[in-house]
Amino acid sequence: MLDPVTLTADLIACPSVTPRDAGALDILTIALESIGFAVETFWAGEAPDGPVRNLFATRGTGAPHFAFAGHTDVVPASPEAFVPTINGALLHGRGAVDMKGAIAAFAAAAARTPDHRGTISLIITGDEEGPATHGTVALIDWMAARGIRPDLCLVGEPTSERQLGDTIKIGRRGSVNMWIDVAGTQGHVAYPHLADNPIPRLTAILTAVQALALDDGTDWFQPSNLEVTDITVGNPASNVIPAHASARLNIRFNDLHRGDALVARVTDIVTAHGGTLTAKVSGEAFLTEPGPLVDSVAAAIRTVVGIDPVLSTGGGTSDARFLSRLCPVVEFGLLNATMHKQDEAVATAGLHALTDIYAEILRTTLV
Amino acid sequence: MLDPVTLTADLIACPSVTPRDAGALDILTIALESIGFAVETFWAGEAPDGPVRNLFATRGTGAPHFAFAGHTDVVPASPEAFVPTINGALLHGRGAVDMKGAIAAFAAAAARTPDHRGTISLIITGDEEGPATHGTVALIDWMAARGIRPDLCLVGEPTSERQLGDTIKIGRRGSVNMWIDVAGTQGHVAYPHLADNPIPRLTAILTAVQALALDDGTDWFQPSNLEVTDITVGNPASNVIPAHASARLNIRFNDLHRGDALVARVTDIVTAHGGTLTAKVSGEAFLTEPGPLVDSVAAAIRTVVGIDPVLSTGGGTSDARFLSRLCPVVEFGLLNATMHKQDEAVATAGLHALTDIYAEILRTTLV
Ligand SMILES: [Zn+2]
Ligand SMILES: [Zn+2]
Repeated sequence: MLDPVTLTADLIACPSVTPRDAGALDILTIALESIGFAVETFWAGEAPDGPVRNLFATRGTGAPHFAFAGHTDVVPASPEAFVPTINGALLHGRGAVDMKGAIAAFAAAAARTPDHRGTISLIITGDEEGPATHGTVALIDWMAARGIRPDLCLVGEPTSERQLGDTIKIGRRGSVNMWIDVAGTQGHVAYPHLADNPIPRLTAILTAVQALALDDGTDWFQPSNLEVTDITVGNPASNVIPAHASARLNIRFNDLHRGDALVARVTDIVTAHGGTLTAKVSGEAFLTEPGPLVDSVAAAIRTVVGIDPVLSTGGGTSDARFLSRLCPVVEFGLLNATMHKQDEAVATAGLHALTDIYAEILRTTLV
Repeated sequence: MLDPVTLTADLIACPSVTPRDAGALDILTIALESIGFAVETFWAGEAPDGPVRNLFATRGTGAPHFAFAGHTDVVPASPEAFVPTINGALLHGRGAVDMKGAIAAFAAAAARTPDHRGTISLIITGDEEGPATHGTVALIDWMAARGIRPDLCLVGEPTSERQLGDTIKIGRRGSVNMWIDVAGTQGHVAYPHLADNPIPRLTAILTAVQALALDDGTDWFQPSNLEVTDITVGNPASNVIPAHASARLNIRFNDLHRGDALVARVTDIVTAHGGTLTAKVSGEAFLTEPGPLVDSVAAAIRTVVGIDPVLSTGGGTSDARFLSRLCPVVEFGLLNATMHKQDEAVATAGLHALTDIYAEILRTTLV
């Protein structure tokens, strides 16, 4: 039988620092083919953000189509972090919880569910921790070109906070960065009438922007939030009025907003004060309202570990923002306490329990 | 007779880039001793702002004591700028107008005024263009230690704008720089409740500070003016709330204010928003109200070049801010169009006319 601890260790041994593959997808291909999956990998993109290697695996036919999504790339670590080490109850190594462990658990769960109706697929990218330009987005394009569209999707990010199963993410806030520039005319502080200081206008813009009333939150989301993250003038001379002043801000917004509408609101303020704005929407907000998918994940957790998960929309962004365009998506996986940290590690018992939960989800959904 | 053009050229030939002396004060010593002055030079200060060489020269005894003040140091220039060159009507070279020319004109004027009552002195520093820590301030201390205090003082800075004699400075605004820092707690933009962004508080401080009503100007001064000259956050990460935000501002203030009172007003605003402030008052405002000294300078200009000078308090600071603590001070000198520029030059006719004006001032004041 496919052992989730062994497969996690084999994947950790591949130093797949984003966007490198380093053999991780080959190991996964062999494991999935051994349990009946048809597996395809392909390269997407070009320098500087690519090329990136992605994998799509499928078993069965027709509806319902249950997809597991994840990534084999990891954030950088020292060479020792790519030597998987079992130390008592813990398996140490980069990617243990984020998220080679979850991929292995899902493969092991599929191995234990040989007979099912519909389709099981794995949508695995090598570019989630990086710019995410040629990863899940490319996989979605690849599937669309082949008429493949899942009905339900589980992303295996480490969502558990204190105890395996305590938190399911049913949505994520959107995120947009904006860059504001105000141009003036340089001059000497003793002759302000010959200069035009851009700082009072930038101050007025930031005051207005920081006073924007976005919303008070929703049943499922906390209030949207704006943070000015940087201001730059770069004027070393204390007797000089500077020629430019600029600022950068980030908004994390719930599903009452769209990124482009927020950009338009801030642009109105900036241009009213003679400034200019550029913006990049990293992701829109999404929400999978409680329903069959959320219920089956919550029920599986209850069955296996005996706790009621909290339904959360907090935290940063993930690739679920892309997959949510296709079908209902939830995120559920291992404990996130050590993710992106030097001592990243997973309890071997946690890997087995997660396998049990994923198998229970597959059973209630497809058997 | 002492020729102002020759002496100016001899002084230009000394590459006395601040705070270096490069022989300039020795040349001046020889010239002044040749016309009956007792001359002393001394070194003041230590690294990094010193040592600086200063000169005090005096002729005659008792009151009234008329002092001419100036500096032999110059701002940096290419080596050619220290080769004095007469090209038609112009004498080219670094320091021609700012202010070796004025020193030479005053020495020539004193040479033409051999018999006078009271005292004529020259207060010449080698540190006006630099930090000005060990220059005029050290000369004032040196004089105080010897019981020397002028009754009238003329600073030879290039005050003329378009035509020799068109502008006398009868005062200068004060200047103060302030540095504001607001500390917060760094964190991820997705978790603002775990962080404390200092930028909203800095924005509030700058809004309040920029709205400060200082004054509407006086009979002799333009309104005091505040400029925020820099803002620094220095946060390269668009998803990070920064730990610090800081700003720098400058106030040019008239004689309705004292530097320390302005620092106290801004400090109140900054501390009310949880920030901290450091400040440096570079100089207080001063004003020599129209009276005997201003009248005699204006009358001499009228006599020699036939125009009525404007009485100004505009522009930057000068060493007159220190001398104003001792006695009435006015500033009058050559055309400032080329000062601190690559093509610094003085009309030889202007040097002779300035000598005539200075001699007329000495005559009406001391003869
Ligand atoms: Zn991840
Ligand atoms: Zn000067």
